[in-house]
Amino acid sequence: MAEQELAALLLTTEPEFRYFTGFLTRFWESPTRPWFLVLPASGRPVAVIPSIGAPLMAEGWVSDIRTWRAPDLNDDGVTLLADTLSDLAPTGLIGLPDGHETQLRMPLTDFSRLKARLGADRLTGDCGLLRQLRLVKTDAEIAKIETACLIAGRAFARLPEIAGAGTPLDQVFRRFQMLCLEEGADYVSYLAGGAGPGGYGDVISPATGTPLAPGDVLMLDTGAVHDGYFCDYDRNWSIGPPSPETRAAHARLIDASDAAFDAARPGITAADLFHVMDKVLTGGTGTTDAGRLGHGLGMSLTEWPSLIPDDHTELVPGMVLTLEPGIAVGPRIMVHEENILITETGARFLSPRIGPEIPVL
Amino acid sequence: MAEQELAALLLTTEPEFRYFTGFLTRFWESPTRPWFLVLPASGRPVAVIPSIGAPLMAEGWVSDIRTWRAPDLNDDGVTLLADTLSDLAPTGLIGLPDGHETQLRMPLTDFSRLKARLGADRLTGDCGLLRQLRLVKTDAEIAKIETACLIAGRAFARLPEIAGAGTPLDQVFRRFQMLCLEEGADYVSYLAGGAGPGGYGDVISPATGTPLAPGDVLMLDTGAVHDGYFCDYDRNWSIGPPSPETRAAHARLIDASDAAFDAARPGITAADLFHVMDKVLTGGTGTTDAGRLGHGLGMSLTEWPSLIPDDHTELVPGMVLTLEPGIAVGPRIMVHEENILITETGARFLSPRIGPEIPVL
Repeated sequence: MAEQELAALLLTTEPEFRYFTGFLTRFWESPTRPWFLVLPASGRPVAVIPSIGAPLMAEGWVSDIRTWRAPDLNDDGVTLLADTLSDLAPTGLIGLPDGHETQLRMPLTDFSRLKARLGADRLTGDCGLLRQLRLVKTDAEIAKIETACLIAGRAFARLPEIAGAGTPLDQVFRRFQMLCLEEGADYVSYLAGGAGPGGYGDVISPATGTPLAPGDVLMLDTGAVHDGYFCDYDRNWSIGPPSPETRAAHARLIDASDAAFDAARPGITAADLFHVMDKVLTGGTGTTDAGRLGHGLGMSLTEWPSLIPDDHTELVPGMVLTLEPGIAVGPRIMVHEENILITETGARFLSPRIGPEIPVL
Repeated sequence: MAEQELAALLLTTEPEFRYFTGFLTRFWESPTRPWFLVLPASGRPVAVIPSIGAPLMAEGWVSDIRTWRAPDLNDDGVTLLADTLSDLAPTGLIGLPDGHETQLRMPLTDFSRLKARLGADRLTGDCGLLRQLRLVKTDAEIAKIETACLIAGRAFARLPEIAGAGTPLDQVFRRFQMLCLEEGADYVSYLAGGAGPGGYGDVISPATGTPLAPGDVLMLDTGAVHDGYFCDYDRNWSIGPPSPETRAAHARLIDASDAAFDAARPGITAADLFHVMDKVLTGGTGTTDAGRLGHGLGMSLTEWPSLIPDDHTELVPGMVLTLEPGIAVGPRIMVHEENILITETGARFLSPRIGPEIPVL
């Protein structure tokens, strides 16, 4: 902040709040109320929040908690926030996260009021500080992510209990979330997947009631949460014996993620990992319509960096990444995903490593 | 739009997208990619979205789908969006939701680029059009919300299977989510609650491992989802026989929500419902720190209006509301919540109506 001449940071989103305060609640699911966190250039963070959040915030290390009775249709915290900023940073620039993968979680009208109150020229970007901090995980964060990965791993291992030929896909989705919870997930913020003969059409559609059929490939991709931290990986299964094409496609996906795992080490870049996988998948043409072959992971399901040709973020120890190769199989696709940690000397699997053979249900 | 002289609307959030396109996916959990929907003054919506979303979008009624390969660190859809807006609305104002309970889901830097490209004076607010539309639900929407309510109701009815003296609260949270899934929820986007002797401290904290004990009041508040629509209501239980204070507090909460239910009809206001409940709860002093005594409900866990003294939104048939009275019980609180539909002549319970006696576990 000193280098960027920032007198304060202004943060508004769930992971930004939690990163600095430990404030963990599912109440963010409600879009009604704005929440503000001010980080002065020196001193502790100051929370400017709806009064409903004060008891939970007071359990953490933040001691300066300023509240208003929200929602207030006339002034939903804007005056209190402006006063707090004027108090903590009477002059100088106030930085807001404004780059890729960031959002401002407050109404635009209120943001305009804040600018009018403070002077629009006092509000600027955060110069990527939040990205820079969150890119590298602490040991405590890594342990939470690994726990989430192990929970999902136990649920994946139990899939034969709930899925097979004849099971409707939407029932598989429900029962798999139940397995994740039974294995210790606090909640299952993300579950996607697909099933179809020899592959699936996309990886973001909701489940239909279509029953699994012999020859289908089933994929489940979950973001199960442990203590606020996500896993994000998937598994594929063949319903009945796999065709040679399905076996080969699965083996190639594993080849791709294994190649990226073997290459992963401090000093190479996110783009390098893309190219390692793309070479296995397409021979190096860079033609994948998914847009990327993996990404960061932590307090959010997806975080910086992106494994794409243009992301030259250098890997450093403590980064947690997904490796997410995808491949066309006729008119359909198959995808695979693992979670890894960048270590001092290479990488370590956080998701349980699997072999090239697609498991059969 | 014609009245407000808007040439187009620009939408960026999940419920806004889904409202106009039917695009339902949990992929919004990933904050990485921006999504844009343009509603021209006449004609169908046009989707400007990451290519990963094109197959699912194409299953709906939107036929003009313009994609880019996201994430693109140099131009994450901004040029494509600007071109689309210039194409569909070469002149005139472009409205973005900017009022209470709205957000802009794109990076601020990209929003600045868009303004620079189009001319900042062409971007304005949506004049509350989205709020006005989403305030009133169609019969199809009401049926989905009611299904979600019934699913949660069956799960609540099964609580004795999973909770009693000695059960850790975090296990109750996990097992209750499993019950919701087993009863047919697609996913459980929200679960909050609390437990403590004669009441709880707040209603947004995550569950701890503390076991339930005789004399505790347990509360669970869930937002279970069916086909993209939420319920949002809670239930209380006494662990063992309730004290006279607990019984009286529960009965008063039911009195409050029943009074609001009896009063609810077209023509009165959100504020009126607040005052009806507040009279039962505090004698009419308006002192509730939760900020409001209910709210709208539908595609989001919480929506407009707010049951607060300042919200003079007039009730009309088709509104779905929560009634959410709260009461202080010594140093603790108790809350209760129901979901109702405003009808032509009054109101109808969507959550299964309960009586004044607190159930015992």
